[in-house]
Amino acid sequence: MSTHDSVTEPTRGLPDVSELVVGVLGGTGDQGRGLAYRLAKAGQQVVIGSRTAERAETAAAELGLGVRGADNATAARESDIVIVAVPWEGHAATLSGLREELAGKLVVDCVNPLGFDKQGAYAIRPEEGSAAQQAAALLPDSRVTAAFHHLSAVLLQDPAIEQIDTDVMVLGEDREATDTVQALAARIPGMRGIFAGRLRNAHQVESLVANLISVNRRYKAHAGLRITDV
Amino acid sequence: MSTHDSVTEPTRGLPDVSELVVGVLGGTGDQGRGLAYRLAKAGQQVVIGSRTAERAETAAAELGLGVRGADNATAARESDIVIVAVPWEGHAATLSGLREELAGKLVVDCVNPLGFDKQGAYAIRPEEGSAAQQAAALLPDSRVTAAFHHLSAVLLQDPAIEQIDTDVMVLGEDREATDTVQALAARIPGMRGIFAGRLRNAHQVESLVANLISVNRRYKAHAGLRITDV
Repeated sequence: MSTHDSVTEPTRGLPDVSELVVGVLGGTGDQGRGLAYRLAKAGQQVVIGSRTAERAETAAAELGLGVRGADNATAARESDIVIVAVPWEGHAATLSGLREELAGKLVVDCVNPLGFDKQGAYAIRPEEGSAAQQAAALLPDSRVTAAFHHLSAVLLQDPAIEQIDTDVMVLGEDREATDTVQALAARIPGMRGIFAGRLRNAHQVESLVANLISVNRRYKAHAGLRITDV
Repeated sequence: MSTHDSVTEPTRGLPDVSELVVGVLGGTGDQGRGLAYRLAKAGQQVVIGSRTAERAETAAAELGLGVRGADNATAARESDIVIVAVPWEGHAATLSGLREELAGKLVVDCVNPLGFDKQGAYAIRPEEGSAAQQAAALLPDSRVTAAFHHLSAVLLQDPAIEQIDTDVMVLGEDREATDTVQALAARIPGMRGIFAGRLRNAHQVESLVANLISVNRRYKAHAGLRITDV
């Protein structure tokens, strides 16, 4: 269907991010740990953050691959790129407390505001429009992007899986920032970072995880997304 | 990544829909015409509807393949499955006026409530939660599903393209209804219908089109979605 060189096109001209330190706030949760593992395995320097340094250090030691652990503030301070993978319930409080540490940093929000009841998952709409927009409102001195929403934590953490065949939708206002996050995603084998709009269109990307949960239940899968014709 | 028979699994056990008549309301628009063309090409009986029978008949004659044209009310009455592909602006008014004709029918809403400004497309949140939930509220005697949101009208209408390599997320409350819509999607070569949740999770599926528009602009593509691991 495409006349493009479909595998390489979205990564062409992206910056070299191999020397950047990546912090993962909430790095002891499944999503955070999975991302930390994949990025470290790809050769990235990774610091996982947690509310207590001890928990982060324990998780880091389990991951190996040179991953370090620290409290969230230290992890933020020591990183160039900071992935926010905390539970939605703690999102606003965690970020409000880290405004100074995150000043000047590239922040990547991957939080999915979801509720759960007996019918499954459903989208929660934050007052600011999305988790990413809430992050942008709370962190006026950071460059805030949104990405890494649709990855299966199970697949990310499974060492038997070499490739993560999923695209990462990257959203943000600032081309340099989204290019950097796209390049980071592309470090993980099988993964592509695809620019997918501004933060005002982050809500649907975040809440699409509710649909992927339905897919997983119906098909006993670990569903992800590929964008076709790119 | 998957242990599934990944191409056939989602269609296993789906009903035979080859004898069902498909109506396409708003069938003279790009999306409706594209869907009508693909379904007719796959051997489905198709009636496209428009506000005036003349416009529908003209569009039907252009499509060929046995496609008929009629006013929306007639198209609804003569069909088993009715795809709603009208512009969002006319969605509520069109459906309110067709409550009787659509009673007992399987309705497939594929409308994307979007706004546009100089920064591109953005999601509009209907009072009912989504276009599909609005349809369900206006059509209490119909079985309402949501599907066919992420297809490129350009690719659908291009006769040089044999396969539409895109998955169709199908949402609804009623298993028999969503199975039928999945089977309809699977009639089109390259396409799979994948169950992706209840109507309360339709908003993000509808509004994700804003993100695909951003993808299309950035990469000069006609982006669609594939669901991985299914």
